[in-house]
Amino acid sequence: MAMSSGRLPPTRRQFLTRVGVLAGSAGLYQAMTSLGHAMQSDFKGPPKLSGAKAGTTVLVLGAGLAGMLSAYELRKAGYSVRVLEFQNRAGGRNMTLRGGDTLTELGGATQKIGFAKGNYINPGPWRIPYHHQGLLHYCREFGIALEPFVQLNHNAWLHSSSAFDGKPVRYREFASDLNGYTGELLSKAIDQHKLDDVITHEEQQHVLATMRGWSGLSDKNTWEVGARSSLRRGYDKMPSAGVEGAPTYSNPLPRAEVMKSGLWRWMAFPEVLDMQTTMFQPVGGMDQIGKGFASRVGDLITLGCAVTAIHQDEHMVKVAYKDCQNGNVLREVTAEYCVCTIPLPVLSQLDIQVSGPLKAAIAAVPYASSVKLAFEFKRRFWEEDEQIYGGISFTDQPISQISYPSHGALSKGAAVLLAGYMFGPAAYDFAGMTPDQRVAEGLRQGSVFHPKSYRREFLNGIGVAWSRMPWTLGCCSMWSEQARKTHYKTLVSMDNRIVLAGEHASYVGCWQEGAILSSLSAVTQLHKRATGAA
Amino acid sequence: MAMSSGRLPPTRRQFLTRVGVLAGSAGLYQAMTSLGHAMQSDFKGPPKLSGAKAGTTVLVLGAGLAGMLSAYELRKAGYSVRVLEFQNRAGGRNMTLRGGDTLTELGGATQKIGFAKGNYINPGPWRIPYHHQGLLHYCREFGIALEPFVQLNHNAWLHSSSAFDGKPVRYREFASDLNGYTGELLSKAIDQHKLDDVITHEEQQHVLATMRGWSGLSDKNTWEVGARSSLRRGYDKMPSAGVEGAPTYSNPLPRAEVMKSGLWRWMAFPEVLDMQTTMFQPVGGMDQIGKGFASRVGDLITLGCAVTAIHQDEHMVKVAYKDCQNGNVLREVTAEYCVCTIPLPVLSQLDIQVSGPLKAAIAAVPYASSVKLAFEFKRRFWEEDEQIYGGISFTDQPISQISYPSHGALSKGAAVLLAGYMFGPAAYDFAGMTPDQRVAEGLRQGSVFHPKSYRREFLNGIGVAWSRMPWTLGCCSMWSEQARKTHYKTLVSMDNRIVLAGEHASYVGCWQEGAILSSLSAVTQLHKRATGAA
Repeated sequence: MAMSSGRLPPTRRQFLTRVGVLAGSAGLYQAMTSLGHAMQSDFKGPPKLSGAKAGTTVLVLGAGLAGMLSAYELRKAGYSVRVLEFQNRAGGRNMTLRGGDTLTELGGATQKIGFAKGNYINPGPWRIPYHHQGLLHYCREFGIALEPFVQLNHNAWLHSSSAFDGKPVRYREFASDLNGYTGELLSKAIDQHKLDDVITHEEQQHVLATMRGWSGLSDKNTWEVGARSSLRRGYDKMPSAGVEGAPTYSNPLPRAEVMKSGLWRWMAFPEVLDMQTTMFQPVGGMDQIGKGFASRVGDLITLGCAVTAIHQDEHMVKVAYKDCQNGNVLREVTAEYCVCTIPLPVLSQLDIQVSGPLKAAIAAVPYASSVKLAFEFKRRFWEEDEQIYGGISFTDQPISQISYPSHGALSKGAAVLLAGYMFGPAAYDFAGMTPDQRVAEGLRQGSVFHPKSYRREFLNGIGVAWSRMPWTLGCCSMWSEQARKTHYKTLVSMDNRIVLAGEHASYVGCWQEGAILSSLSAVTQLHKRATGAA
Repeated sequence: MAMSSGRLPPTRRQFLTRVGVLAGSAGLYQAMTSLGHAMQSDFKGPPKLSGAKAGTTVLVLGAGLAGMLSAYELRKAGYSVRVLEFQNRAGGRNMTLRGGDTLTELGGATQKIGFAKGNYINPGPWRIPYHHQGLLHYCREFGIALEPFVQLNHNAWLHSSSAFDGKPVRYREFASDLNGYTGELLSKAIDQHKLDDVITHEEQQHVLATMRGWSGLSDKNTWEVGARSSLRRGYDKMPSAGVEGAPTYSNPLPRAEVMKSGLWRWMAFPEVLDMQTTMFQPVGGMDQIGKGFASRVGDLITLGCAVTAIHQDEHMVKVAYKDCQNGNVLREVTAEYCVCTIPLPVLSQLDIQVSGPLKAAIAAVPYASSVKLAFEFKRRFWEEDEQIYGGISFTDQPISQISYPSHGALSKGAAVLLAGYMFGPAAYDFAGMTPDQRVAEGLRQGSVFHPKSYRREFLNGIGVAWSRMPWTLGCCSMWSEQARKTHYKTLVSMDNRIVLAGEHASYVGCWQEGAILSSLSAVTQLHKRATGAA
């Protein structure tokens, strides 16, 4: 699609910054969550589009998942479909970077990926929740193999700059201690008859039994050094074999420090619906999904088409575009209907002939900025030296997290990890750096988890800034509650002959599932309109 | 190894039953845990056995993991090793059953596995914790590919016959509600100044903030229907796309019922060190590990050797065995040293010439009984109809659990799940049934989770009773604390020219890691003895 200046309108940036400053990077992510980021699909099966007038023409703009799925379902129903795509590849944000690939961003910086053969990173979507039934349905239909994505890892690190002397603690240590102290405090309140007016005596006994068992308390209802606490948080000396095989117990972290640390947020994180197990990733890279879709509709797609205008009248939709693969010649194409999946920051800058309310809706949804760093290391030191297999180490530093690969455990040779994943202010900071600076800063911050190995084993790295991707100008839509109330229904409703699709046109924003469900909604509306049912 | 009468000595059975009756099947499992079942390895790398007198002879009894690893490390060090194995296959309890395999148990019942090609079950060990570094080391060394084993699944079922009208609830619903109510109660105690004498005012503020965020409480510090609770426990109507895309919230389960249900135990379960993520399974079946070991030492193994006596004097160890592959001829073999990995219930019935204390130790450790059921179904209805991918549904019925396959998500065609896994009294009950009865009972109980599909999609099933396996007479060792105090050091210490190995000779009982670590301890002791260092 058409390129813009590369700068988000100030109002959007201000919105993001405002939220970000208040809550920090993690807070922003959680704010997104409550704004519609973290939800569940109600996919009921593929649409039933019977009775189409064969040959009715539809133009689909954008060959991401939403566009390709629209093309797939509409062609199946008998429509004559054509897809225009800005980039020189199909898939949209569904992409995977491998050694030899290059990435050019707004501003001109070009990164060449230096990964060894077989190594890759998914800079866009990288994990799939179990309840994204629309996406999973098409993965199954197209034979795309999935494998578990490890989201929660009890042996990964949690780090707060202001707790535990700035040293990371293992998730299992922190989580066990927080559970334990919580159970101990609540048990104490009950034992001392301080909740007699809140819960019945009978329920008090149930709560005590639950706390004791669930939290792993001692017989005195305390969380203290011993067999029960070490069984969860880990031992000082691990049980083994031989005459000296007996274990020695570990000491819980101090309660006040646990409660003050703020690290609870990373225990809450994997309990949120979108991050619960079981999560998946496609075997071999997220782009296996885009390729699966493209294998069905690749013949309908024209690459290198920078759309400049979308007009419609009573009979037709007319789209003007620059043919980037043929000397930037300006061309026009017409169709009876149009499914437009162009990301809103790009779409809002095009000459588009829709109603005033839809124009307002298109302008009303800011896109999140995000940056992902990916580093390749000589070996899997996180597995070999620290017994971390997949999962995420979290920090309150701007990089926010390091995510270790869920695939290829125990394998020898170079490996790639996600060395940072930023939303909000931190993402703007990193997007403002050169790629080399992003990598240097990621190395510096990530060393807090792996001080002995991080620099020593480092081979190469990249930093992908989504706000600098000319074809999307951001990571994904961030609906405010107010915008949702005012504009959502307009944005997702057919406007004469044009209907929008993409994750932004859903309540499952920032997820591929949003693209899938919005696409199904769009083609269903289009079909009703075309067959006179609406 | 030699066969016994197939009945465990009464004292062992009594011990198991006593624990079992007090605590139920789940309680028994937890008792095992605190008796040394659930611990962490302190593997420090393979042993360094330099300076052996080349050609020193060692006889290894048993070609399970402990025996094969002993042979592998001793041959590497220059010893002349031979392994005698009772069964007609190497691997021991490390095994996988596939279509066409047969299994004959004590009493004569023979089951023929009817699974479709590619389907399998691991009736013995089936999962590997991240901290079992010894086993993982050899998996890596032998190139055995691992994949994540999904232990915790937020969308699996929890069932108590006496809670929630006997209907299963989703893990995510129960866990979110238990966390939420716990946070609410503790917050209430603090808000009402009932813990002023227990924690400082400053810490109270930290605890409140922690409870609110970690538990997902409302702004009023309550756990109630709304955006925050549905974000964790799930929605009534899921967020979607289209004009009707907005979600509707779900109602938490009643607090008194949550606290009374006893289902907390299945939230505690995946927090215990041995069950924490990341867990693994070998790609293609657990026996890939046994085969990996056998590929290194297969040439040293003689199959079909039923050991009847183990004698030793100042110079040699002499072992008598029945050569089952050659007309049950009695044979004798001698060596300078012996590593004996024969499971204790079998070993205790042999003519073995060791010290009185070691004899007492061998007799002092009961073996757990366990039964595993495995059913094949026409399709993955648990995935297609219920969005359960891997993980475990738990029940207080005797079958205890259903574990769904962690591999092959979304694949079409027949699939196998673990339809029951019993310890203790329930295992004795099931072992007393015919295989057909075990399957029928498993079908009946498992239907509580999947009433619509379980019988309709069923194809075939098996029930493996470990107490009826003639070569081990039980699942694994169950050290009592008293036995550990009295006998452990004797059991794991070299007795003149004989040293024991196997999971029973470790603090990591009932895990393959115990076999690995005990083997390394055994060969290290043997080497010291042989080289005069001990």
